[in-house]
Amino acid sequence: MALELYWGSGSPFAWRALLTLEVKRLQYESKLLEFSKEDHKSPGYLKLNPRGKVPTLKDGVFTLYESLAIMAYLDRKYPDPSLFGRSPEETGLIWRAISEAESYLVGPGSKVAMPIFFGKGLEKRDEIRAAAATIREELTRVDTALNHSDWLVGSRVSAADIALFPLIQLILRAASKDAAKPLELGLLPLGQTYPAIAGWVKRIEALPGYDKTYPPHWK
Amino acid sequence: MALELYWGSGSPFAWRALLTLEVKRLQYESKLLEFSKEDHKSPGYLKLNPRGKVPTLKDGVFTLYESLAIMAYLDRKYPDPSLFGRSPEETGLIWRAISEAESYLVGPGSKVAMPIFFGKGLEKRDEIRAAAATIREELTRVDTALNHSDWLVGSRVSAADIALFPLIQLILRAASKDAAKPLELGLLPLGQTYPAIAGWVKRIEALPGYDKTYPPHWK
Repeated sequence: MALELYWGSGSPFAWRALLTLEVKRLQYESKLLEFSKEDHKSPGYLKLNPRGKVPTLKDGVFTLYESLAIMAYLDRKYPDPSLFGRSPEETGLIWRAISEAESYLVGPGSKVAMPIFFGKGLEKRDEIRAAAATIREELTRVDTALNHSDWLVGSRVSAADIALFPLIQLILRAASKDAAKPLELGLLPLGQTYPAIAGWVKRIEALPGYDKTYPPHWK
Repeated sequence: MALELYWGSGSPFAWRALLTLEVKRLQYESKLLEFSKEDHKSPGYLKLNPRGKVPTLKDGVFTLYESLAIMAYLDRKYPDPSLFGRSPEETGLIWRAISEAESYLVGPGSKVAMPIFFGKGLEKRDEIRAAAATIREELTRVDTALNHSDWLVGSRVSAADIALFPLIQLILRAASKDAAKPLELGLLPLGQTYPAIAGWVKRIEALPGYDKTYPPHWK
């Protein structure tokens, strides 16, 4: 039975699952939910994922949600190419990079991006700018790591790259909006602020299947 | 060379690493940092962990921080007993439970526990009670899962149990304090509020080596 992925355009968490499927060259049925129609809150979808979030994966009778769980599951079931490291040390460093993104980038990213995308809370300028300062610190760490290497951990794309990339893309997209200009976030132009990240973004964009993962409403 | 674990008493994240080492029956050198002396901010420690947090693991020349990364590393390097599942489905469900704890329990847990432990911010009663409501929702999910099974995923202790247990213990300890009484958190007595969790706590407390992991200043 085919894999089915339920996702929504612009969700960085759903994007992780799509990238994982593409990098592993797995066949899957794409189930694109429309957030504006509340597809993710429909009774049918809530049966698959009671939290009403994306992504959700179906693999035959097995259903799974939470993006990192989907990535770990796919890697264990379809191990080629391996995305969680070829040694214990790589595995540790990959999960370290992912944990750091979850703990230090997801929250501040949301605090910056949501007001810009939805136009609500833009008056909380100090909070947004404080979150942007944290983001800049984290991106400096990422940029430094990428100074020495094409990929975050090891010599090829891993789950660390796949988990971080959509978060960073979301933040950069928010930073590029007109509403972001008065906030002076200090994130763009990427080639000047974080040159190593800029090169890494290009490498990820060149991965086979990347285009299929790009949020449709961003095009 | 021996494993070395740097930890601090009462950190739920450090507790995860200690439990992992004990469940795997690994020999390790315990490096207990004193938060009150700012050991975790000393120049020597910051070389091991630039974030100045606990835990940090040293395994010969390899150093690693972030609790989940340490768990994944130890499991890959010392795979018996396996803590991340015996099938792709178990692996997926274990990471789902861990991801849910990170996303929905860590933040609210901190919002409830920190004011109670440190006596600061207790006047933000509505915020604390809102966080407690989220905690109750999450614990209800956990309790329901444990109604059907001794362990969160599969038929034996896994990384899901080890990752959640210290978070839940921290929340329950906060709830048991005098300062928590006027907040009416609705979490205790555990045997009445979450009877399946109460049984699970007893099973974890009965694991060999558990006593060595218990926060010294809680005794």
